[in-house]
Amino acid sequence: MRGLLVGRFQPFHRGHVDVVRHLRKEHPEETLILGIGSAEESYTSDNPFTAAERYEMIARSLQAESLDQWVAIPIPDIHRHALWVGHVVELLPTFERVYTNNPLTRTLFERAGFEVVSPPMFDRELFEGRSIRRLLREGSTGWRERVPAAVAHYLRELKAEDRLRALPPTATE
Amino acid sequence: MRGLLVGRFQPFHRGHVDVVRHLRKEHPEETLILGIGSAEESYTSDNPFTAAERYEMIARSLQAESLDQWVAIPIPDIHRHALWVGHVVELLPTFERVYTNNPLTRTLFERAGFEVVSPPMFDRELFEGRSIRRLLREGSTGWRERVPAAVAHYLRELKAEDRLRALPPTATE
Amino acid sequence: MRGLLVGRFQPFHRGHVDVVRHLRKEHPEETLILGIGSAEESYTSDNPFTAAERYEMIARSLQAESLDQWVAIPIPDIHRHALWVGHVVELLPTFERVYTNNPLTRTLFERAGFEVVSPPMFDRELFEGRSIRRLLREGSTGWRERVPAAVAHYLRELKAEDRLRALPPTATE
Amino acid sequence: MRGLLVGRFQPFHRGHVDVVRHLRKEHPEETLILGIGSAEESYTSDNPFTAAERYEMIARSLQAESLDQWVAIPIPDIHRHALWVGHVVELLPTFERVYTNNPLTRTLFERAGFEVVSPPMFDRELFEGRSIRRLLREGSTGWRERVPAAVAHYLRELKAEDRLRALPPTATE
Amino acid sequence: MRGLLVGRFQPFHRGHVDVVRHLRKEHPEETLILGIGSAEESYTSDNPFTAAERYEMIARSLQAESLDQWVAIPIPDIHRHALWVGHVVELLPTFERVYTNNPLTRTLFERAGFEVVSPPMFDRELFEGRSIRRLLREGSTGWRERVPAAVAHYLRELKAEDRLRALPPTATE
Amino acid sequence: MRGLLVGRFQPFHRGHVDVVRHLRKEHPEETLILGIGSAEESYTSDNPFTAAERYEMIARSLQAESLDQWVAIPIPDIHRHALWVGHVVELLPTFERVYTNNPLTRTLFERAGFEVVSPPMFDRELFEGRSIRRLLREGSTGWRERVPAAVAHYLRELKAEDRLRALPPTATE
Repeated sequence: MRGLLVGRFQPFHRGHVDVVRHLRKEHPEETLILGIGSAEESYTSDNPFTAAERYEMIARSLQAESLDQWVAIPIPDIHRHALWVGHVVELLPTFERVYTNNPLTRTLFERAGFEVVSPPMFDRELFEGRSIRRLLREGSTGWRERVPAAVAHYLRELKAEDRLRALPPTATE
Repeated sequence: MRGLLVGRFQPFHRGHVDVVRHLRKEHPEETLILGIGSAEESYTSDNPFTAAERYEMIARSLQAESLDQWVAIPIPDIHRHALWVGHVVELLPTFERVYTNNPLTRTLFERAGFEVVSPPMFDRELFEGRSIRRLLREGSTGWRERVPAAVAHYLRELKAEDRLRALPPTATE
Repeated sequence: MRGLLVGRFQPFHRGHVDVVRHLRKEHPEETLILGIGSAEESYTSDNPFTAAERYEMIARSLQAESLDQWVAIPIPDIHRHALWVGHVVELLPTFERVYTNNPLTRTLFERAGFEVVSPPMFDRELFEGRSIRRLLREGSTGWRERVPAAVAHYLRELKAEDRLRALPPTATE
Repeated sequence: MRGLLVGRFQPFHRGHVDVVRHLRKEHPEETLILGIGSAEESYTSDNPFTAAERYEMIARSLQAESLDQWVAIPIPDIHRHALWVGHVVELLPTFERVYTNNPLTRTLFERAGFEVVSPPMFDRELFEGRSIRRLLREGSTGWRERVPAAVAHYLRELKAEDRLRALPPTATE
Repeated sequence: MRGLLVGRFQPFHRGHVDVVRHLRKEHPEETLILGIGSAEESYTSDNPFTAAERYEMIARSLQAESLDQWVAIPIPDIHRHALWVGHVVELLPTFERVYTNNPLTRTLFERAGFEVVSPPMFDRELFEGRSIRRLLREGSTGWRERVPAAVAHYLRELKAEDRLRALPPTATE
Repeated sequence: MRGLLVGRFQPFHRGHVDVVRHLRKEHPEETLILGIGSAEESYTSDNPFTAAERYEMIARSLQAESLDQWVAIPIPDIHRHALWVGHVVELLPTFERVYTNNPLTRTLFERAGFEVVSPPMFDRELFEGRSIRRLLREGSTGWRERVPAAVAHYLRELKAEDRLRALPPTATE
């Protein structure tokens, strides 16, 4: 039995860790698949980190929290929303349940007949990816407390602040 | 520390299990990444099974053998050989060593500066994917002994013989 | 003799019906091709409906209006403007004349030597797609009078208001 | 109610006309969709004619036979067999039944839950596309009796024999 | 020995000519490659001119200035930033040094181990592409003094003002 | 005035040099564009060398022969034959005449209205690319006399024999 949590994890933050901890506790028999969305995107303002880097953030954080029975798998974009669920089903290990708070992800999986569950949102405003990316770009230290210690350390290794500053802002920022 | 073993695993057979067992024993500290090549291919004569199905074969076989400390990750084709290593490095968890007996895979990874190791070939003729696919297509029972018991069982679930017979043969078969 | 009317028909609205009625009346000998642009797009804020759904809207509306001698053909995007006319000419039934009020469509077809005609605009502000999509998203009933009755009925079947609300707004909305 | 007949129609031949006549007679209430497969392929040995040209062959032949209640729609390849049915469903008018004698097409549609019917094969050996393309390439007049008169006339217009001779043979020819 | 200057050259303006003159003077032994970025883009608001047209602007301007020892090569987008340098290295003549003032271009090339040099910016505000495109769209004559005489003449030939006015503005304009 | 010579130049051999010398002599006022076809292909049996490497072979050979007034530009494949000429026209410097002995290339350019000229074939059997690639793979020294001295030297630098041996043969070899 497997459940799927889809995210872009740009970066993997404390809100994500809380959701994983909650799901592992609620469904101890389930293996949790973390689907790394827009996997082929990187070095853009909305998707600054490669899938490899995002895997590293996930693995280091969940190991530090002693959370196990998870796998993380990249999901490249297909740029065809009506086919996206079929694309995910074809590429990822088989799963029976989907966890998401994203309305479009919910719509697409429900249309395909999947059970979709909204995990509780832990302090979403504080932890959401866009704010953290903005803080990184601005060089404000506020991003550090919003990510697990392992991610904070890794982002320093990657010189994430410098990287973000080099990326042209997107229209929605 | 991670090592990468690339294959298409069409299907995952006993030769693959032998290589995984060998690598896990030789490098107990290493996590082994099984990169599922041509991940987006399926329902063709050379690539009959989806990445999801191949994952299932891998997971069931390695669990039956009590082999652990591995992950399996799909690698979609990029159709640009000169960029393929960059593509793999971007999408997969970071790895330091590559295991392959494929001369092109070796050439491309060496060109990118990776350490490439040839794992011993266990009875390659007996176990190679092309022969097993041909036996499946012909409905000859000979394929069963060439795959782990868990895969044999799963291929029957999938009605693999029927599937193979429905696929047009490729030029090289 | 065939004429081509290109649109995205997101959704097919009363302005579109008026143009088709006008063209069928002016050119009774001509078969009218409705080219469904951005055919592979769906479940986005700008392109909420699949080509299949847009075909259904067109077919039901034109049948209700007893308009005939038309065909509707999907046109996937090619993302290369300089090649788009060649792409359309390759995929669609041969046509001799193009109807459009879109300046870029006009530019590209004229550059390729086609005769381009601007059909009269019937109440463009009232009927344009973007307004209707906004009304659907807001759940305002105003969208109903802007589309043919057959489309209004179909959009309720599709739960179009719910769909639109689930889609992230684009930068230009 | 609509039924789907998928083919590449390279070229549209007398066997195709026979199948359409049969289906129109058996299912007079049904609209028949002719899905023009590999629509974006042309000027290759296996796919010498554009979708536009194939549409022309279909339209002229069926009009000459006074067959109506059909539409012909291009289906570009998606190069992902596991997603191909979803791709067709997204792009074409909604259909409830599939007509095919191709084992792979049958497998993929059945897997997606569609009713699949094998139309009777009228003299398949005589009429199949590959033979006709070979006869065209060889400049043997034998191809003329294998296609409807309207297609024979159109292929002369296109200088099809010259075109075929200019195309490099594929590995399977 | 070759150096690479990447730009989109939409259009090629006097600032570009100044940089080329500077680089040719500083590095007389070096062949300068002008990499025409987003080569497959045209007839959009941000990329109005085809690669062929941009080549023409470059060739006429540099010839008028008697600047030699340069080549101009189109670089199609790859839409994978982490692979973009590998893509450029694969397609273009080998180069040893990169000239750019774009922070993302610098980041990507430095990550790949290239020497990156910032050429002096000659009156960037006056000459930047976006302003010139806006002036063209507005039909203001101000664009003429911002481009070399050869480009001004060529843009009139192309009816560039009309073209720009036909293109829908992008979100960032 | 420019003329276009399209080839894959896998590798650039003495037959190519002879054609360039001939064309430069016949049309001294013309700039010759060498279009490097299938530019994004490399490390395959049919296309072993990258566009960058093929550029290098061209540049070194023509310089050694003191042939000038040429440019070499990569042409990525578009995998749509009916659009290929439009693709070439969009990406390359404008040209007025096409030189080719390839029947498909001739067909496609003539269809688009170009003047197409067959250059004389100098000892085609001796020099053709496929034979040279086979000799390289076999490690037979016969390939050396079939390429210009500069190319022979460069292929040794690239360890071309080893590369060819690592590439799986294609169906047509």
